[in-house]
Amino acid sequence: MTNYPDSLSRLVESLKKLPGIGTKTAERLAFHLVKLSDEDAMGLARAIRDVKQNLTNCSICYNFTESDPCPVCGDAQRDKSTVCVVEQPKDLMAFEKAGEYKGVYHCLLGHIAMLEGIGPEDLTIDALLKRASGGAIKEIILATNPDLEGEGTAVYLRDVLADVAKAKGIRLTRIARGVPAGAEIENVSSAILSDALSGRSAFTGGER
Amino acid sequence: MTNYPDSLSRLVESLKKLPGIGTKTAERLAFHLVKLSDEDAMGLARAIRDVKQNLTNCSICYNFTESDPCPVCGDAQRDKSTVCVVEQPKDLMAFEKAGEYKGVYHCLLGHIAMLEGIGPEDLTIDALLKRASGGAIKEIILATNPDLEGEGTAVYLRDVLADVAKAKGIRLTRIARGVPAGAEIENVSSAILSDALSGRSAFTGGER
Repeated sequence: MTNYPDSLSRLVESLKKLPGIGTKTAERLAFHLVKLSDEDAMGLARAIRDVKQNLTNCSICYNFTESDPCPVCGDAQRDKSTVCVVEQPKDLMAFEKAGEYKGVYHCLLGHIAMLEGIGPEDLTIDALLKRASGGAIKEIILATNPDLEGEGTAVYLRDVLADVAKAKGIRLTRIARGVPAGAEIENVSSAILSDALSGRSAFTGGER
Repeated sequence: MTNYPDSLSRLVESLKKLPGIGTKTAERLAFHLVKLSDEDAMGLARAIRDVKQNLTNCSICYNFTESDPCPVCGDAQRDKSTVCVVEQPKDLMAFEKAGEYKGVYHCLLGHIAMLEGIGPEDLTIDALLKRASGGAIKEIILATNPDLEGEGTAVYLRDVLADVAKAKGIRLTRIARGVPAGAEIENVSSAILSDALSGRSAFTGGER
């Protein structure tokens, strides 16, 4: 049997290192790249190189950025006294897309997952503690994912932040869990409904 | 709202040009590329560049190759009198992986799909006609896909090859359609079962 040309096999092997891309998909993508215009294909190659060369983590919040501090930390309009702690820069981007939040962030760059060998020391928790003891922070919002690892990480953070929070008068909060906006209750899982019930709050606003 | 850093948005846009990759997947891949080791990420960038620079179509069969003619056409052991006509180089690779076929190939580089604006003149049909009239070919196997466009293309090829096939004594054949090896008949579609029935052949080999 005749194999793929060398450069094509190397491309397939490289593509297979991406998440969720097996041999078949890698082959499909590789064949597509061969047929893509030179401009588009080279554009992708250049974009990958640029990202590796230009992107770094913000020294304050660990968001991905091309300039340090990142645009959020460097923005004089943002409320530096409120810090939203997220797992990844992409979570930060999701909050930014929502557009409501005016505070700053702290990216943990992961979550605690002992089974995968990710402990607290692999995250940016030390830097968060240092920011908290800096004195200018009034609230830390724990916005890790509402799943097993995210909740575990939030609980861990609550415990390690307890002392400094008490000393500096920092409010520790956790994002709300409940039914997602736009959902139909009949289609929502019982775990979500339990959250929605146990997290219920007074229904106000109609008084006159 | 703060947007992605420039280099990251460019990478997401480039990735979105690949087939089956929407915004969400492109973002996931981009974030993964940022975290990937420099070696692996640069390896992918280099592999894309290499493929665009080194890969060309074989001047005989239009397979992708780094040397012209391609390894199949250049192989003295292969039976040059049998030509298997496939739509794409990846179909050629599939036959090569199966390992049984000892003839050579002809890649059409597509199929006729008038609705998508792909006519016979966009494929390598002229080159196939030229090969057929060359005189050394005994059989042309039409191995386009067993779908609407593939069958249409096969029928078209049968018609345009008819004259030269008659003049040069070339046998025109079509790959068999039927139940796929390893399938369970109960799970197979009725179109496949119709093919399997109408294409049935004498069950021989047990005689003594």
